[in-house]
Amino acid sequence: MPESVLVTGANRGIGLELVKQLLGKERPPKTLFATCRDPQGPGAQELRALASKHPNLVILKLEATNPASIQSAAKEAKSRLGDQGLNLLINNAGVMPACTLESATAKDMLDVYNINLVGPMLVTKAFLPLLKRAAQASPHKALSCGKAAIINMSTILSSIEKTPEMYHSFPVISYRCSKAALNMLTKLQSMGYKEEGILCTAIHPGWVKTDLGTEQADLTVEESVAGILEVLSSLSEKHHGILVTWEGKTLPW
Amino acid sequence: MPESVLVTGANRGIGLELVKQLLGKERPPKTLFATCRDPQGPGAQELRALASKHPNLVILKLEATNPASIQSAAKEAKSRLGDQGLNLLINNAGVMPACTLESATAKDMLDVYNINLVGPMLVTKAFLPLLKRAAQASPHKALSCGKAAIINMSTILSSIEKTPEMYHSFPVISYRCSKAALNMLTKLQSMGYKEEGILCTAIHPGWVKTDLGTEQADLTVEESVAGILEVLSSLSEKHHGILVTWEGKTLPW
Repeated sequence: MPESVLVTGANRGIGLELVKQLLGKERPPKTLFATCRDPQGPGAQELRALASKHPNLVILKLEATNPASIQSAAKEAKSRLGDQGLNLLINNAGVMPACTLESATAKDMLDVYNINLVGPMLVTKAFLPLLKRAAQASPHKALSCGKAAIINMSTILSSIEKTPEMYHSFPVISYRCSKAALNMLTKLQSMGYKEEGILCTAIHPGWVKTDLGTEQADLTVEESVAGILEVLSSLSEKHHGILVTWEGKTLPW
Repeated sequence: MPESVLVTGANRGIGLELVKQLLGKERPPKTLFATCRDPQGPGAQELRALASKHPNLVILKLEATNPASIQSAAKEAKSRLGDQGLNLLINNAGVMPACTLESATAKDMLDVYNINLVGPMLVTKAFLPLLKRAAQASPHKALSCGKAAIINMSTILSSIEKTPEMYHSFPVISYRCSKAALNMLTKLQSMGYKEEGILCTAIHPGWVKTDLGTEQADLTVEESVAGILEVLSSLSEKHHGILVTWEGKTLPW
């Protein structure tokens, strides 16, 4: 497993649970960066409590739609990581506001695209030098999350082919369009970064009981994240540039 | 074939050629709306010359990223169409600026998404009442472009599955992401508007010698548009919510 990991949107939901379960592993990451927009605010209380007990957990302020904020986080991460670079970047931060074909406005579409697509793109660009360094420093040739990887949090609702199955329960137009674009970005990253030895995969976390997934969801966040971490540990070249579920199944675009 | 058609981005390239070939048909549309951002400008000279010879051609000013401009065009179209509504809306306007993983900025991504995804969405919403009216007024039950249809101009470069084939020649990150999202929007529209009797299909025009496609392209705009119009005339329920080429072949998402 990776020696260094960064998780965005780590103060709640799937992001926070990723941090908890990574810290609880037999061999936890030597450095685990948990980013959120407001590390001092009330929404990051649980994250701060974890950091006070785990010296390997580093909370970074990062607003994924603000290039200056991303640069500053990347600079701090670089100074802490030194020559080993960053093994695993998990672009988890995202939003899913209500949005139907009838209600959708230009602002809805652009705001959600900015957070769900542009954010992960900017974060990836900023941390790319650290990911490349990790890939170069690794003794392994094969692609893996232990070497260097970009994981983009996608969703089954991004699957154009599967849209008819859940359109009426979850129209969420702005979210679905942004996540279909994120799948494309993942594929483009997989083409652009393959020679650098960086694995790029999109993941569907299941329908999870979080603020975003609501209480009606059929998975607890603990179950989803346990599945995700299991899947991440098994990712290899054949998962490069595809969309997999928390159970490791491939989804169609 | 449809009695009324609207083509956006109709002052050049594929849009202009669609107008020319529709006007040249044995049974041309009774009303053909050609929209562009600046109908009085030098870029719309050819369109104005056509309109002076064809009384069924109506040039409308429409800036697809400006809701007020779209509303004003829809209002004028409504007053001209009366009770028959609009049969066929072709969302053709779009841009493809150079953009690589290295060069892409937030502004690049958001501007292109605004033009290529938000524009077609807003235009469709504004003309939806006219499309519904045409569907209701039609004596035909089956979905077709003669009854009521939304055609979104997509591209083979929107296909996530086909990305490896042409990534190195056309990285165009902002364009590809926006068009993958447009495919999703087309699928969502196909779900939302099916009961209204409105066909929704995305089309790949081929690689065409236009300002956007450059001189290296392998198709003339005349060949591409002849193919597109042939395909449009044959579209039916089985093409609802899919991506087809100018030759009528289905592309994977």
